[in-house]
Amino acid sequence: MTKPSADALSRFSINQMTVKQLSLPELVEACVRLGVRGVGLWREPVAEYGLEATAKLVRAAGLDVSTLCRGGFLTALDPAGRAAALADNRAAIDEAATLGTDTLVLVSGGLPAGSKDLAGARERITDALASLGPYAAEQGVRLAIEPLHPMFAADRCVVSTLDQALSLAERFPAAQVGVVVDTYHVWWDDMAAAAVARAGVGGRIHSFQLADWVTPLPAGLLNGRGQLGEGSVDLRGWCAVVEATGYSGPIEVELFNEELWAGDGVGLLTDTLRRFTALAI
Amino acid sequence: MTKPSADALSRFSINQMTVKQLSLPELVEACVRLGVRGVGLWREPVAEYGLEATAKLVRAAGLDVSTLCRGGFLTALDPAGRAAALADNRAAIDEAATLGTDTLVLVSGGLPAGSKDLAGARERITDALASLGPYAAEQGVRLAIEPLHPMFAADRCVVSTLDQALSLAERFPAAQVGVVVDTYHVWWDDMAAAAVARAGVGGRIHSFQLADWVTPLPAGLLNGRGQLGEGSVDLRGWCAVVEATGYSGPIEVELFNEELWAGDGVGLLTDTLRRFTALAI
Repeated sequence: MTKPSADALSRFSINQMTVKQLSLPELVEACVRLGVRGVGLWREPVAEYGLEATAKLVRAAGLDVSTLCRGGFLTALDPAGRAAALADNRAAIDEAATLGTDTLVLVSGGLPAGSKDLAGARERITDALASLGPYAAEQGVRLAIEPLHPMFAADRCVVSTLDQALSLAERFPAAQVGVVVDTYHVWWDDMAAAAVARAGVGGRIHSFQLADWVTPLPAGLLNGRGQLGEGSVDLRGWCAVVEATGYSGPIEVELFNEELWAGDGVGLLTDTLRRFTALAI
Repeated sequence: MTKPSADALSRFSINQMTVKQLSLPELVEACVRLGVRGVGLWREPVAEYGLEATAKLVRAAGLDVSTLCRGGFLTALDPAGRAAALADNRAAIDEAATLGTDTLVLVSGGLPAGSKDLAGARERITDALASLGPYAAEQGVRLAIEPLHPMFAADRCVVSTLDQALSLAERFPAAQVGVVVDTYHVWWDDMAAAAVARAGVGGRIHSFQLADWVTPLPAGLLNGRGQLGEGSVDLRGWCAVVEATGYSGPIEVELFNEELWAGDGVGLLTDTLRRFTALAI
């Protein structure tokens, strides 16, 4: 294996879902052994291991938590649903602060059952951000709106492009709300590079994530994200676009892939780091 | 069943793939019986039945052929692949003219194997259109670029938005090249309504197609298009957007759906017409 450069290691962050077959202690141990310094965490496995215990574990290992995934799901129409979503997001913000990350990733939510009103759903996200942004900033946490690929618009995320995400974010201070640039979701979009530049100028690239696009996609779409270099995405090109804005933060690799999950987790982490290094960030 | 209005019947066209369990004679007979006046045809079943025989069959039944699907696949990098694609598209144009339709739908093609260059692939489509457009116009056929949902960008169609399709089309006269507006592919896009308006002003809405978006999507993505009214698309809203441009041509219903194909074809056509009528075009 090419030895990862200090530069690559200083930028690389492994999203926990990429290697979800690893327990938190296994993940942390592997990171330390391989020289990986950043991890992106998910609320569910963190809760399972214990929030305080996780915070202690990663802190003791000297790991940086690049992001916490995820808050969001802010498109409910009914008052009870909206109140529950706000409460859950405040809890997620608290968890992010406890874990020592400055970034909470938001997946906005899809259309409520029976609704066909995308524009209305997008407006309700704005309303929720107006409430959550100041609360997050008080905890030292930035909200990062992640546009999801348009194939998720109905059932998962009505924010489908980086332009849409940025237009939502720009209604608030950058210290409160920014965006996630994830190559998996934006690679097809000829407007996305300009949106990255605009996000960079505004200091709103709160997270940068890599995954490749491979076909055919599996049923349900979720768990077919490609390992770096296996698909159609010009990852090196996208890294250059993001770096050109002056972005110097973590670059997180987030793959959801049944085949990769079926194998050895430490081997997968090692291979992912090798592929990341080969991109010569 | 609500009796279809004369207006609905004058606009409705059934794409052959929607009811692919019907043979051409069965389809034509059902159309005549139900008062359907328009059909969109596909090259493969037409070739199977015979091009001249199909032309004679639909002409004798007084049916209008709203579109022929499909040409395209114009992204090859190698000269032999490009020449073959041009020859195949000229053949498709000839077939369209023989069938008496003025519109050939183009699905542009995905990335060539190993390529990550979306912009380059889009440019090669332009080169091909420069060759095919004049030939088509001579036969009285308009080329209609169909943007496909971004989930098909890698393997099927690098033209992912109506804006992209229109920007390609606008390099040529409208009598040569226009676009397909298909709700299935553009419904998620907050820029699409403005693009429809721009296409209308330019006389470039060469086809308007309806399908609904239902989840979860099946593996491979292709055959999960929803029956009208079953999904998340504001079909009535999109019809209004297209009609507002002054478009008064056929409205084609094109569904690819394994479940629908498993049932009775005439029943499916009847139900599709009923649902179309309920949209109160």
